[in-house]
Order: sequence, then structure tokens, then C-alpha cells
Amino acid sequence: MTRFAFDIHATDGKARTGTIRMMRGEIRTPAFMPVGTAATVKAMKMEDVRASGADIILGNTYHLMLRPGAERVARLGGLHKFGGWDRPILTDSGGYQVMSLSELRKITEEGVTFASHLDGSRHLLSPERSMEIQRLLGSDIVMCFDECPRADLPRAVIARSMEMSMRWARRSREAFDAGEEHASRAALFGIQQGALDEGLRKASADALIEIGFDGYAIGGLAVGEGQEAMFATLDFAPQQLPADRPRYLMGVGKPDDLVGAVERGVDMFDCVLPTRSGRNGQAFTWNGPLNLRNARHAEDTGPLDERCPCPTCRKYSRAYLHHLHKAGEMLGAMLLTEHNLWFYQQLMAGMRAAIAEGRFAAFAADFRRDYCAGR
Amino acid sequence: MTRFAFDIHATDGKARTGTIRMMRGEIRTPAFMPVGTAATVKAMKMEDVRASGADIILGNTYHLMLRPGAERVARLGGLHKFGGWDRPILTDSGGYQVMSLSELRKITEEGVTFASHLDGSRHLLSPERSMEIQRLLGSDIVMCFDECPRADLPRAVIARSMEMSMRWARRSREAFDAGEEHASRAALFGIQQGALDEGLRKASADALIEIGFDGYAIGGLAVGEGQEAMFATLDFAPQQLPADRPRYLMGVGKPDDLVGAVERGVDMFDCVLPTRSGRNGQAFTWNGPLNLRNARHAEDTGPLDERCPCPTCRKYSRAYLHHLHKAGEMLGAMLLTEHNLWFYQQLMAGMRAAIAEGRFAAFAADFRRDYCAGR
Repeated sequence: MTRFAFDIHATDGKARTGTIRMMRGEIRTPAFMPVGTAATVKAMKMEDVRASGADIILGNTYHLMLRPGAERVARLGGLHKFGGWDRPILTDSGGYQVMSLSELRKITEEGVTFASHLDGSRHLLSPERSMEIQRLLGSDIVMCFDECPRADLPRAVIARSMEMSMRWARRSREAFDAGEEHASRAALFGIQQGALDEGLRKASADALIEIGFDGYAIGGLAVGEGQEAMFATLDFAPQQLPADRPRYLMGVGKPDDLVGAVERGVDMFDCVLPTRSGRNGQAFTWNGPLNLRNARHAEDTGPLDERCPCPTCRKYSRAYLHHLHKAGEMLGAMLLTEHNLWFYQQLMAGMRAAIAEGRFAAFAADFRRDYCAGR
Repeated sequence: MTRFAFDIHATDGKARTGTIRMMRGEIRTPAFMPVGTAATVKAMKMEDVRASGADIILGNTYHLMLRPGAERVARLGGLHKFGGWDRPILTDSGGYQVMSLSELRKITEEGVTFASHLDGSRHLLSPERSMEIQRLLGSDIVMCFDECPRADLPRAVIARSMEMSMRWARRSREAFDAGEEHASRAALFGIQQGALDEGLRKASADALIEIGFDGYAIGGLAVGEGQEAMFATLDFAPQQLPADRPRYLMGVGKPDDLVGAVERGVDMFDCVLPTRSGRNGQAFTWNGPLNLRNARHAEDTGPLDERCPCPTCRKYSRAYLHHLHKAGEMLGAMLLTEHNLWFYQQLMAGMRAAIAEGRFAAFAADFRRDYCAGR
């Protein structure tokens, strides 16, 4: 069995399509990873996540270390068995969530001490502890522990943070490799930082390449900088990373973000948007997003999206989904989440096919015309 | 196609097992009807409700008339199409919910005027309007409009209320029959009242039989009187109703309530308990109820119930369900609701098989030994 291999089947401009092969299964790229924060993709059964087309899901180290706890998950047989997903799982390092969710943080060269947002208990996250947690969870793709600063901080602050993240990346690599049994089955990805600055991004990429990773993530984007600034950064950042390794843009994004990022050479994505929006009454369609709470849907007998083959669109009307969301019924969240995950996976499948057939530019133009017209 | 037929295949003591045949499908009795209040069985997909073994579900007239509205459901093609359930649906009359949920009620011989608990809007429910709403919804089994008083009121109050309900039953029958097209496809059930009083129950039964119905419900129980008083009433009430017609005990109940009521000759049940409990972390098992929030389940790798073939028990541990309920994850409600509906349907299937094989007393004794031992 292959621990980790990435084969690029076709390129079209900067866009690439390929397959990552791992022991727990193959990942078709460009890939979208649904977010399964607390060992569940919210409002979804795992078999339905798979049926939507997902090859891999993401788990959040920060949430899982606090509840139910990494050692507990390990005693229960690992995250795959616990949550009922037997294909690859990527876990983040906790570096981003500890900054956005925890309280009373203190950052030193050693790592981050913080208080749990659940019960105030004190915890440490460091490169070594993050690798240990991800090993206890049984992660297939482990992410380096990094700091993710706001993109609008002064360049010197961004630079110092990036440099520390690169030292943490080396410690992550060493700690990961020390867990020999797990390291023989799992992959480790480095995370490029440097915010919007081309020079810092280049320095970060070079530092990561020097250490050597199975794949390379682009961190520190989708933190409020806006699509234009994100795309401007993606005009150079992916090309600074090795062409023969998967490139993963963390925490992105909206459907049009995904198209623009694939166009710029990105291979992997994760985002809470399809699941969170599903719970909030927002549906993604080929003609743009829809708010199902809007009264104009109250007597609309049509499906969410005429082109969508998902179980929700095959069976239910917009009127019914409107009713469920107005009434606060859980089924509204369930059905809309399922549709949104199908939509995201169909978008990825559409991009993969377009790249393979050398018509990505036309696909992207058609997508933008229809999607943005409805927005 | 048969509009409505009830065949009793076997009896064992007072217990009976049979089949109700209707245009939209067969209902195996004794039957448990999951409650689909607002055109959804909460936290469940309809295909999974069916997979649990349900032949029929219940819809609530009171809720549906207020949101999305009966006329709107009719414009959208009826309740079956709207909610995605193509088998029989029984709708209650709204008589019970209007008393328990609405505000500013005024009861007269004509009916009940009330203010919606959703927006304060004024509405009337009468025998005629209830029949009209149930027709607009496209109900398969329509319930007479009745008043359901508290069982602890003075006998004279209970008697006057019952007598009005019997006049309302006649008006319900006439209004139902006037909707000729719908009446050619649907069935109408009368509702016996009279609280715990044998004489009033007999008078109510006789009044209903005089009018004539497809089936007969026992109303006014499970309103806080306790299992002992309910069973004492069920010692006589079912036998006052025609032996060749289905008997439906409304709003019941706990698993041991169902066994005791079947033992006393009841054929049909509905209750929110399996669904509501599922959302609240309570699971029903052959060894009694379990509270999944309890810390003792935190590292229990076993299933909810070793004997249960449901998707939840086949795939997930108590530890995972504990985690989901502690974390407030929607999947916890989904998986526990599904298990509870399977458990209820398996209990009904077990009772049907035991009656058919003439071993109901042994089944009931075994059930009580295991279920009550774990309680």
C-alpha cells in the first residue's frame, strides 16, 4: 500500500487535476474537504457525506483535543472508527482555532497556552503536542503547527510570525517523524505563511521545501482580506511551492473562490461554508446563492437547482425547504447541508473534468456567468 | 383499490393483530405512528422513517393550519407530496393542540376561536373547519374534531364536554361526507371521550357507533392520569368499541404503555416520545431507557442495544453518541431519533408476531422483565 503519492493527470494553464493515493483511499484533485469539526460533518450522516462525492474530510484538532479529548479518541480506536468514516481524514494543527476561539492565550517560542472556550481549562498547544494529538486521532494528513496572524498587521510582525512558524514546521516534522508507526501510514503537510507579501511567501516556501513535506498548504488567507487580495496572492504563492506536490488552500471558500484558486494552481480546499450555510438557510446553486428563508420561495414547487442530482433536489421543493427553515425544523438544515455538499463536490468534479479535457477557461467563464448573474 | 378495510388475522386474549388496507398502502397492526407534526418527523428523512418499519405517520392539523397553512399545502399538491411521504397519513383534528398550545381560547358549541402561538393571529377550529383542513392536507385517516378535557375535572364537566364532542362527531361525519371526492379515498375515525369514567366512556362509544366510523380512537388519556389509571380505563374502554374496527389510543406512549394497551385490545398508537427523547439524549432499549448524556457512556464502545439492527446500533458506539449529545451536535439527535423509531417499530413487530403465534403473554412478561430491570 502506498503511504502517499500524488499523480497529476492533466494540467490546463496553471490548473491541475490528479489523484492522491493513500492507504485509506484515493483523493481526486482538485478536492473539496467537508469540515467535520467535532468528529461529525454537522447535520450529515457520514454515508451521505461520502455519497455527495467527498474523498476526504477534515477534523479540527482544537475542538477534538478539548472534547472528547485526543487520548479518549485514541482509547476508543481513533477518529475513523469513532466517527464512522473509513477514508482519509486531514486534521488541522489547532493553530488557527486556538487564535480565533480560545481565551487567555499566551504565545511563546514553545507554543500557545490557552484556556478552553468550553470550560476554561488550561491547555498547551505546541508543535510537539499538536503532532501527538493528530497521531492519537489517527489522522491521515497531518498539518504542521503554525501561527496564523491577521493579514493586515505590519510586515515586520508578519515576518516574525512566519519565521517562528517555519521553526515550528521543523519541530513538527521532527515530532511527526518520531512517531514512527503513525508516520509510516500518514502524510505531513507544511503551511506557507507570509500574508499578502510575495517576498515573505517566497521565504516561507523555501523554508518549507528545505525541510521537505508531502504536501504544502497556503495558510493565512481567507482571514478577511477579500477575494481580490486573496487572488493577487494566489497569483504567485502556489507557484512558489513544488509543482509535483499537492497545494492546499486552507479555509477557502465560496464557490467562485474555488474556481479562481484552481485556476491559479491550487489542488485542495476545506471550508465550513457549505455546511454552515446549509444550517442557516442558504443554498448554493449554479445560478448563485439562494436564501431559503425568503418569502418568495414559499409557494415555489421547483427544486433548489434544476441541474442538481442530489437527494434534496430530486425529492423536495423550494417551498418545503422554505417551510422547514421558517419552522426551525432540523430537516431543513439536513437537506440544505446535503445539497450544498453535493453542489461543492459537483463543482470540483466539473473542474476536474474541464482540466482533463483542456477546457478549464471555458468552464470557469460559464460558471462565473451563471453563478454571478444569480447573485 | 380499497378505501378502508381492516382484517384481523389473529387474536390472543384481548390482543389482536391485523392489517388495515388503504389506497396509499397497508398498515400492520398493532401499529405505531411516528409524529410528523410540521410535515416532517423531526430530525429524520422520510425514507429513513419508512426504513424503520413505519407504515403510517401522523400530521398535526393545528401546526399545519398555522404554518405553512392548509390552503398553501393544498396549492402545493397536498401533504404527501409536500413532505415526501407517499404512504398513509393520519391527521389529528387540532382539538387537542388548540387546548394545549394556543392562546386566548374561547370554546362555544360552534367550535374554538384562538390566537396562534406563532404570531397571535386569530383562527377558528370547528368540526367543519377541521374537516376542511384535513381534506386540504389530503389526509388518509381523518380524526373527528373533539374537546379533550383534563381527566381530573368533575364528572359533570367531563360529561358535558363528552356530549359536546359527540355532537361535534356528528358534525364532523357530515362535513367529511360532504367532501365527496376526498371521502371516497379517506377514512374517518370517531374519538371516544369520558375520561376515566366507565359509564361516560360507554355513552360516548354508543354515540359514536350510532353515527358510524371507519375506526374508533380512545381520546382523553395520557393527559397526566398515570399508567395505572390509564390501564384501569383501558380494561373497559376498548371493549366498548366495535371489535371489527381499529382502535387507536391517541398520544400513547412509553414502551410499557404500548405493551399494556395492546394487551387490552388497542391496535394503533402515536406519540412524540421516541422522536422527542431522541433529541434530548434518551434512548429506548430492550433493557430500559438510557440517558446518553450520562458520563458513564463516555468510553463505552458498545452499541446502544446489542439486539437492535438499526443503522445507529450497527455503526456507532455509546461513546460517540454521548459525545454528540454533550457537544450539542445535530447528528446526535438524528442518530438517536432513528434508533428510537426502530426500537418502537421492532416492539410493534414483536407484539404482532407474538399475537399471531399465540404467545403474547410470554412476550409481554419477557419484555417487562428486561425493560423494567434496566429502568
